[in-house]
Amino acid sequence: MKLSDIGEREAIRLISQAISTGNVAVGIGDDCAAIDIDDQNYLLVSTDMVSKKAHLPREITPFQMGWFIVAVNLSDIAAKGGEPIGIVLSLGLPKNTSIMFLQRLIEGANRCATKFDTAIIGGDTKENPHITLCGTILGRVKKDEFMPRKGAQPGDIVAVTGTLGKAAAGYYALKHKIQNKEIVKGLLQPIPRIKEGRALAEKKTVSSCMDISDGISASLYQLGELNNVGFEICREKIPISPELIYIQQQTKIDVYNAALHFGGDYELLITMPADHFEKTAKAVENTGNKLTPIGRVTKTKSIKLVSKHIKNILPNQGYEHFRQTQKYDSS
Amino acid sequence: MKLSDIGEREAIRLISQAISTGNVAVGIGDDCAAIDIDDQNYLLVSTDMVSKKAHLPREITPFQMGWFIVAVNLSDIAAKGGEPIGIVLSLGLPKNTSIMFLQRLIEGANRCATKFDTAIIGGDTKENPHITLCGTILGRVKKDEFMPRKGAQPGDIVAVTGTLGKAAAGYYALKHKIQNKEIVKGLLQPIPRIKEGRALAEKKTVSSCMDISDGISASLYQLGELNNVGFEICREKIPISPELIYIQQQTKIDVYNAALHFGGDYELLITMPADHFEKTAKAVENTGNKLTPIGRVTKTKSIKLVSKHIKNILPNQGYEHFRQTQKYDSS
Repeated sequence: MKLSDIGEREAIRLISQAISTGNVAVGIGDDCAAIDIDDQNYLLVSTDMVSKKAHLPREITPFQMGWFIVAVNLSDIAAKGGEPIGIVLSLGLPKNTSIMFLQRLIEGANRCATKFDTAIIGGDTKENPHITLCGTILGRVKKDEFMPRKGAQPGDIVAVTGTLGKAAAGYYALKHKIQNKEIVKGLLQPIPRIKEGRALAEKKTVSSCMDISDGISASLYQLGELNNVGFEICREKIPISPELIYIQQQTKIDVYNAALHFGGDYELLITMPADHFEKTAKAVENTGNKLTPIGRVTKTKSIKLVSKHIKNILPNQGYEHFRQTQKYDSS
Repeated sequence: MKLSDIGEREAIRLISQAISTGNVAVGIGDDCAAIDIDDQNYLLVSTDMVSKKAHLPREITPFQMGWFIVAVNLSDIAAKGGEPIGIVLSLGLPKNTSIMFLQRLIEGANRCATKFDTAIIGGDTKENPHITLCGTILGRVKKDEFMPRKGAQPGDIVAVTGTLGKAAAGYYALKHKIQNKEIVKGLLQPIPRIKEGRALAEKKTVSSCMDISDGISASLYQLGELNNVGFEICREKIPISPELIYIQQQTKIDVYNAALHFGGDYELLITMPADHFEKTAKAVENTGNKLTPIGRVTKTKSIKLVSKHIKNILPNQGYEHFRQTQKYDSS
């Protein structure tokens, strides 16, 4: 049996069974581990590794690579309602990497960190046959503001921040050689939802939260399994990004397929009791973003995509590492 | 200009100039970053990445790889006198990695973590063309017990925990096909000096400390430059490991060369005022290890190796990533 036979999520399940996780409040299986550091706060920690060859399109610039590894790590802190403390970066680079490449990569990483009021506080630089970047982010959140993955209840509203399909739009722009730097940024320079995460957490109304980096369909399946619930998602309510609609007009791609399954949008997927929705949505609006209700948590465990007169099972086609063909081959 | 032209240490200097490190108490350039989390404690964080192809001999087992990545991270906490809180591991693995390999690797990582009273608290598992492991360790230390790299004063005693050359002995055992699992463990299953680090820190007598993973010669050069001092090291006082002497009897390698320059011994190099040495050495002995005085800190900035009637400049031949040929090629 190989990793390609079981996929990333089963591999993580095997790992979590094999280790003694010590006395963490929340361990493997959530976006971050939460450590009880004092009476009021959790220390949050999460790590993400990216290999250029397996995970990044060849068009990505060194600046964007640096931005990307910081942004995807920050997204995990955002999903728990935390504020970042700092990030450490391990850079695995080939021996013949130019100094200019390193400088631009660090510039991108630093720009993303400072944009979200945090900093690169340490790191490691090591030889590697292929460009491999690993970030570990630290954050902090008040215990009563922590937003776990576990907690969704039947009847809860399901909502998502921002719009879906920005990353897919960037991907198809590159694929079809549509020159538009801003659209490509949706794929290569994602914006972690730190402000939105804080606004949600402060309201203390969210019953569960995760980021949707692997695609919202994969995220719904993960959240459903963990909480022993299902979802009914209204197709018409899904907030499709204007960038994806623009790309669709030129390429005839299926926008819903791209928005639901492609992944790479670092938005937050949340559940909460319906009567708290309005005030919570207002708090997110105050950050300059929006929170869109897209469906309900159901007792029935299936995940349905509802569209006027039709109910379909939403396929679980989000991205999963090891299982699928690589999204990009930038060798 | 390439990374191979400037080496790892110059690359780290460039990086530290390019970033805004925020409000950490101790940042890039020490074994760990230290973050001011409350009145009494620093939160310690450090990250280490290892690529099988560039850094590990082909004979290493999956169990030992897991042990190794945890041990080298723990060593950075030990060097600051801290106690570990937990470690997160990012595993970059080829798609065709067997499940058994993953299980043995996790078993080794978990065994090392629990041996030193800590735990794997999170991680990431991602596809990578080559096996690449990245660990990030968290720890804690009382502010007045933190042992920085900066602080060595002329006149201070220089001392080292344990013995030198265990890793070199393991390397030469493999190279010369001397079947001895225990000796090979010195290279592939290093013991982080957590207990010794705590004992040293509690005495509050240490003026500077670092681990000697790149070899004690490289470490002395780094410590000298940072503190604007030099060292006079007595060749006869260097505690050569019995394993290295055993290997030397069969292979005629130069033990001093191996002990001073090979690297891979995760011992602690410290400086302290001479009048505190005795009680501090006793504290280390109580952990079951020893602390050996090997020389003095000097105002003169050169690093001399003193042997009866001769004083030589100690060459700076420790291992440096990017600059040297890979130690091992286990492709």
